[in-house]
Amino acid sequence: MPWEKSFDLDDAVDCAIEVFWAKGFEATSMADLVDRMGIHKGSLYNAFGSKKELFKRALLKYDQDNRQTTLATLEGVDDAVAAISKLFDAVIAQSTDGSREKGCLLVNTALEHPNHDLDVREIVDTALGDFEAFFKRRIKRGQLRGVIPKSINANQTAKSLLALVVGLRVLSRGSFGASQLRAIKNGALRLLTEAVEPTPKS
Amino acid sequence: MPWEKSFDLDDAVDCAIEVFWAKGFEATSMADLVDRMGIHKGSLYNAFGSKKELFKRALLKYDQDNRQTTLATLEGVDDAVAAISKLFDAVIAQSTDGSREKGCLLVNTALEHPNHDLDVREIVDTALGDFEAFFKRRIKRGQLRGVIPKSINANQTAKSLLALVVGLRVLSRGSFGASQLRAIKNGALRLLTEAVEPTPKS
Repeated sequence: MPWEKSFDLDDAVDCAIEVFWAKGFEATSMADLVDRMGIHKGSLYNAFGSKKELFKRALLKYDQDNRQTTLATLEGVDDAVAAISKLFDAVIAQSTDGSREKGCLLVNTALEHPNHDLDVREIVDTALGDFEAFFKRRIKRGQLRGVIPKSINANQTAKSLLALVVGLRVLSRGSFGASQLRAIKNGALRLLTEAVEPTPKS
Repeated sequence: MPWEKSFDLDDAVDCAIEVFWAKGFEATSMADLVDRMGIHKGSLYNAFGSKKELFKRALLKYDQDNRQTTLATLEGVDDAVAAISKLFDAVIAQSTDGSREKGCLLVNTALEHPNHDLDVREIVDTALGDFEAFFKRRIKRGQLRGVIPKSINANQTAKSLLALVVGLRVLSRGSFGASQLRAIKNGALRLLTEAVEPTPKS
């Protein structure tokens, strides 16, 4: 099979992403990968070393193609609230398109977290940490511009927004459709507004 | 092994919970279960039918021992905000105790959701739906008592609170420790306060 010698690494990793995303790391066999990637087992080992190494490559590429691309697009949105709103729109769109059933490979892996090696955990933690940093940076910028109240704790709110994104991704795999996911987005936007303590009836 | 004839079904299911919780459904083998439960493979099949049936039993018992027990305890807390606050405390405690590494069996299964049969998905959806219903009921009660502002949409806010619980559970498996999880809880409590639109600088 002479074409094999020059198989496209990027395409091969894309195929591996599909398999890992649909089945999870544990349940994916080398036979599944060989089958979907259309290359010989020997070529796979030569090119990627092992199932775990291939998984890391797949996870890094998935992260680059999805999270990094989404966050980069939002760099051009000046208004902080609009940028955070658009991020949730993007996550909802990703959660309700054809790949909905599969969820998010990063979140799926985060749940498998303790079962993974340190280097896989680092990829996941970096991706989630970048989301959190995005939120924190945008809240602070919004506070400087006066569109987000200064009373809000940027550090804490960024963590809540990250939890909402992650929770949204998990619930989208279950019974939550687009309108329910938008309710979660509304909660995220409310966290960017002033918190007023209620006055209990005496 | 005469003791086998009368092995305690509840104890056996508890052992199965441990295995499924640590490894996930897919990665758990019958050998793992037989080994941990200390019964013969034949006895296991006789008592539970199959790995999938045993998983359902385990999931139902886990749900009863954890979520249902936690929610039942909170029925006695009259104040709505206090009840929701205590629920988050309970979830944080569960996320940071010895079982932290394993996360929540229900949330783990929710992420595997599309790969499961309809009856497993129903168990998960019911459990998550009960959480959501708890939040909604408590918000409405709090609104009647004047401790939660009437301007809040109980239906939508309940979904955001559910997403925060789920997100908190996922992030607790990663790099989030107790103080970060408490920041998420603060976000939840802020969703129970009045939302004031910011006035942008012109």
